[in-house]
Amino acid sequence: MNTFGRQFKVSIFGESHGESVGITIDGCPPGVPLLTEDLMTDILRRKSGAKGTTPRIESDLPQIISGVFNHKTTGAPITILFANNNIKSKDYSNLLKHPRPGHSDFVAMKKYKGFNDYRGGGYFSGRLTLALVAAGSIAKKIVPHITISAKLKEVGGSKNIDEAVQKALESKNSIGGIVECSATGIPIGLGEPFFGSIHAKLSQIVFSIPAMKGIEFGAGFFATKMTGEEHNDNIIDETGKTETNNAGGISGGISNGNDLLFRVAVKPTSSISTPQETYNFESGTIETLLIEGRHDTCIALRVPPVIEAVTAIVLADLSRIMIDAKL
Amino acid sequence: MNTFGRQFKVSIFGESHGESVGITIDGCPPGVPLLTEDLMTDILRRKSGAKGTTPRIESDLPQIISGVFNHKTTGAPITILFANNNIKSKDYSNLLKHPRPGHSDFVAMKKYKGFNDYRGGGYFSGRLTLALVAAGSIAKKIVPHITISAKLKEVGGSKNIDEAVQKALESKNSIGGIVECSATGIPIGLGEPFFGSIHAKLSQIVFSIPAMKGIEFGAGFFATKMTGEEHNDNIIDETGKTETNNAGGISGGISNGNDLLFRVAVKPTSSISTPQETYNFESGTIETLLIEGRHDTCIALRVPPVIEAVTAIVLADLSRIMIDAKL
Amino acid sequence: MNTFGRQFKVSIFGESHGESVGITIDGCPPGVPLLTEDLMTDILRRKSGAKGTTPRIESDLPQIISGVFNHKTTGAPITILFANNNIKSKDYSNLLKHPRPGHSDFVAMKKYKGFNDYRGGGYFSGRLTLALVAAGSIAKKIVPHITISAKLKEVGGSKNIDEAVQKALESKNSIGGIVECSATGIPIGLGEPFFGSIHAKLSQIVFSIPAMKGIEFGAGFFATKMTGEEHNDNIIDETGKTETNNAGGISGGISNGNDLLFRVAVKPTSSISTPQETYNFESGTIETLLIEGRHDTCIALRVPPVIEAVTAIVLADLSRIMIDAKL
Amino acid sequence: MNTFGRQFKVSIFGESHGESVGITIDGCPPGVPLLTEDLMTDILRRKSGAKGTTPRIESDLPQIISGVFNHKTTGAPITILFANNNIKSKDYSNLLKHPRPGHSDFVAMKKYKGFNDYRGGGYFSGRLTLALVAAGSIAKKIVPHITISAKLKEVGGSKNIDEAVQKALESKNSIGGIVECSATGIPIGLGEPFFGSIHAKLSQIVFSIPAMKGIEFGAGFFATKMTGEEHNDNIIDETGKTETNNAGGISGGISNGNDLLFRVAVKPTSSISTPQETYNFESGTIETLLIEGRHDTCIALRVPPVIEAVTAIVLADLSRIMIDAKL
Repeated sequence: MNTFGRQFKVSIFGESHGESVGITIDGCPPGVPLLTEDLMTDILRRKSGAKGTTPRIESDLPQIISGVFNHKTTGAPITILFANNNIKSKDYSNLLKHPRPGHSDFVAMKKYKGFNDYRGGGYFSGRLTLALVAAGSIAKKIVPHITISAKLKEVGGSKNIDEAVQKALESKNSIGGIVECSATGIPIGLGEPFFGSIHAKLSQIVFSIPAMKGIEFGAGFFATKMTGEEHNDNIIDETGKTETNNAGGISGGISNGNDLLFRVAVKPTSSISTPQETYNFESGTIETLLIEGRHDTCIALRVPPVIEAVTAIVLADLSRIMIDAKL
Repeated sequence: MNTFGRQFKVSIFGESHGESVGITIDGCPPGVPLLTEDLMTDILRRKSGAKGTTPRIESDLPQIISGVFNHKTTGAPITILFANNNIKSKDYSNLLKHPRPGHSDFVAMKKYKGFNDYRGGGYFSGRLTLALVAAGSIAKKIVPHITISAKLKEVGGSKNIDEAVQKALESKNSIGGIVECSATGIPIGLGEPFFGSIHAKLSQIVFSIPAMKGIEFGAGFFATKMTGEEHNDNIIDETGKTETNNAGGISGGISNGNDLLFRVAVKPTSSISTPQETYNFESGTIETLLIEGRHDTCIALRVPPVIEAVTAIVLADLSRIMIDAKL
Repeated sequence: MNTFGRQFKVSIFGESHGESVGITIDGCPPGVPLLTEDLMTDILRRKSGAKGTTPRIESDLPQIISGVFNHKTTGAPITILFANNNIKSKDYSNLLKHPRPGHSDFVAMKKYKGFNDYRGGGYFSGRLTLALVAAGSIAKKIVPHITISAKLKEVGGSKNIDEAVQKALESKNSIGGIVECSATGIPIGLGEPFFGSIHAKLSQIVFSIPAMKGIEFGAGFFATKMTGEEHNDNIIDETGKTETNNAGGISGGISNGNDLLFRVAVKPTSSISTPQETYNFESGTIETLLIEGRHDTCIALRVPPVIEAVTAIVLADLSRIMIDAKL
Repeated sequence: MNTFGRQFKVSIFGESHGESVGITIDGCPPGVPLLTEDLMTDILRRKSGAKGTTPRIESDLPQIISGVFNHKTTGAPITILFANNNIKSKDYSNLLKHPRPGHSDFVAMKKYKGFNDYRGGGYFSGRLTLALVAAGSIAKKIVPHITISAKLKEVGGSKNIDEAVQKALESKNSIGGIVECSATGIPIGLGEPFFGSIHAKLSQIVFSIPAMKGIEFGAGFFATKMTGEEHNDNIIDETGKTETNNAGGISGGISNGNDLLFRVAVKPTSSISTPQETYNFESGTIETLLIEGRHDTCIALRVPPVIEAVTAIVLADLSRIMIDAKL
């Protein structure tokens, strides 16, 4: 469904080529200073424009329409809208008969009986991550002691990002990448067993972002090649600091006071500028499809601020849920 | 929290060394034939006993105490209990001052102010997966057209599982492994965007299982090394069947009718039989800790039926949620 | 929180004197014809203008910004906004020091540490019911076999509504009233025990409407004066039709196929045009407060379409939840 | 569904004539002293035995099977079971063809396709309120500053309870009653708008109790006969204390620091010892049904501790949810 979180809860809506995308945040404490400008730092980091990103340029100006009064949050739901301005008026109905490989076109048509807004991916579009980024900026404000940082570590299997992107652009193909996120300053105790552990909630929201194919915490998949002796993080002081951090800051699903660390796998952009052989549901034959229009050569370039945002949302939610023993 | 799912919902409870572990299933349709024996197949697959698993042997007999009448489900909540019988009466209180590396001992003590049941990991114990397996057996019954199969693919980085386990046993160490799960017969359309996509819900519940450190769908992390042309799964017939299955059966977070495919990384068991240097909170110094007692050398050996169970729970839940356009 | 419902779920936001009020509906099936005009019938019924209602006139034009494509719902979240246009720019800050009797001013200030938007009641304003009415119009479309009708039965204890309102107006006072709601065409089986019974969910949402002080189903409070023999509704045919309907169409918390029937108590409007003695938190003394501005003499006049809307929301949600025995 | 609450959450299960009824409480803070004896006070108040209550006598001994260690709560889910011992082995299958008036027999059969456990009402039985009472006793412990008191005020329209019950017994009929509940010591600010207001949550859980037909807060239905001037509660000191309490301690859906006050209408017990004319689904004719067995002449006699329990559950949950402005 369109809602995530319990005590810091977000509800998302909108489509790529509809009037707006937006998000409502419920559970933000009152009194948090909030100007639209405060949201712009992360929004600009997510924006396209760099080499390898889509030429669709949107102003991405947030409009806060509720929950803020005298430049401070009120405790009531905060709704933020982003108008869709730069919408090409081309005909997308071709997608219904000849769905694009790797996209949601086919399943969305089936699931929604053909009534889905298929233009630019509709509700499945990466454009909705803009709303997540705005919510994340607010989440960051309510866990000010936590610093979250996500970085693109490699693309197309290469650590030389510029070169790999340039090569993909030239070959009219696309590439994916790996984004690593760390967070420092996390108190011990975030995460609610059994089903609300910190990595469970993080992975749920990470896989809500389009194009994600994997997530691993700490040593992750490499941990399967280690022995217990190598993998165990031994505590070295009374704060619970560990000598190594193979666990990625999580023990028993709960933050252990060490840095949170995880990596996500971003698939290559599904839209490519080379022809593809795929099924045409109208003709009933496999035909060549050439996808026109604007798209990111490497969507992974724009993912880091989105990963930071969803991490902040989870940490803000878990912080507000944490059980207090005081009676 | 202790609840997962919306229309097929499970609520879990119990501790390793308490009286019982158990689970309540709400939303099971009425009229499903259900005997305790039906639950035993998967329970026995999860059971210890093989080389590399713990010598703690439990009868693991399920007791269905509600929701079943005349050997059929009634539509009311189904509660299943498993008594804990084989509990060693040794003193576990040492864990509070000298927590075991890799375990939840330290964070649980901090989060629950020292009131947690620390014996055998308490609420954090892998013993609770027994309850998940029982719920999974019921979930499988309500999606009978789907076949789920999880297999251990490698341990300690080796494909020769027996040999690797034997070696770890001999060296009094532990190893992890990779479990692969596939599911066939899934209809198109399971998964509820934005936050309830099929991989989002699967990953949430997978990370609720102790010892999980990573998950990847389809080509997963390897997808980051592929081009879009290589990674895209081209549709080849009118059912939506694709030539390749790099997406692991998921498009836009929704099942696309091809086989669901994912892999999980299981860390090496935290308890090992060799001494470890770690912090003693009472003495305030780093000391050698030797963990006595029974434990699995390779917990990954027992994970496949648990992964199947949680997969069945997610698929049952999403099947019951799926929006029907009929008015 | 700001969300209600499970399979037909609404999330509300906005303030009386903010930019807009609005609502997001998640779980509406795809393919439902929806024009903004479709929403106007109920919106106009809720509108002020009649004698005894506030002179604040708003255009109340709904703006559907997501979830509708080609005049049909898409299955994605539907967000509807209503701009607040007719906002008097007067200074409301006096409310903080001298809260209005019967209003939320005092508790909102305390709960939200003085950061709440207090203008016109802010998030607590009856203006948010406009958004509920819009959602209710959509809900009605997805349970087309059900007819819901709410009527004002008495005001100020009198069945002569016009006369009683006129008298209250003349005395610069306010009055409440009783609204009765019935719904026909309800299938047997709506309502999910234990906590999601039909009257449980109805009462929860009814009490979310400002000014509600009581609710009773069927014979309601009068049932406490009847014997079991008098109160029991005996079934008279194979459809489950009962001779009497003291139960108000509900047995065991589940719709029984007879007409749903309930009554709600609406308190007299808190704002009155006569001076009131109440505490001034700045001066620390009890002082006379005269509330200026526009208000409804009898808010109950405008309640029936709101009651119908929330009833439709509950029935739509329960209809979509109802367990289907088909495997 | 079977779950209520968010931060102090209960999940209920069991049937009247199954093996047990029980409840799981999630979100109880760690360190709360808890013995089974602590639960007995309220359990004994709910017990039958007095004139006008059922002769079915159960031991009602709670068994705490998880979440408590060393006589204190651990922070993990607490599950409490009550065995059903005194079950008459008579044949209840007659209920399927000739459902009892006023009971859930008919709707349960329809909703659950005939698979429901119909013995003694099954999951719809008042016996499940025993589990609520146990959860309520725990809830009371975590809001120790609040005192909740529910009393039976009248039965069958009479304030002379003993006499009215005696008369109903003699006439082999049944009667209902009105229970009034007040709670003192409630802090200002409990209740979460828009849909989680204090009276919304209270009414939801009250209507989950079998036999409830109405609820009113403060002046309730009588408020509809008052003017605003009469009804408004004027604040008289800096704590927010009001001169009158027509609002029942609730402003804008939030506790205002004055006593919470509400009344509930309990219908006459559906089972009576006189013959009733009702439909026989097997013969297809209206026939005389005589209900044999044990039942309460006036179930309202046993309702006060149940009302207290659900009130405590709501107050505990809202207390733990309350937004804290501290960042």
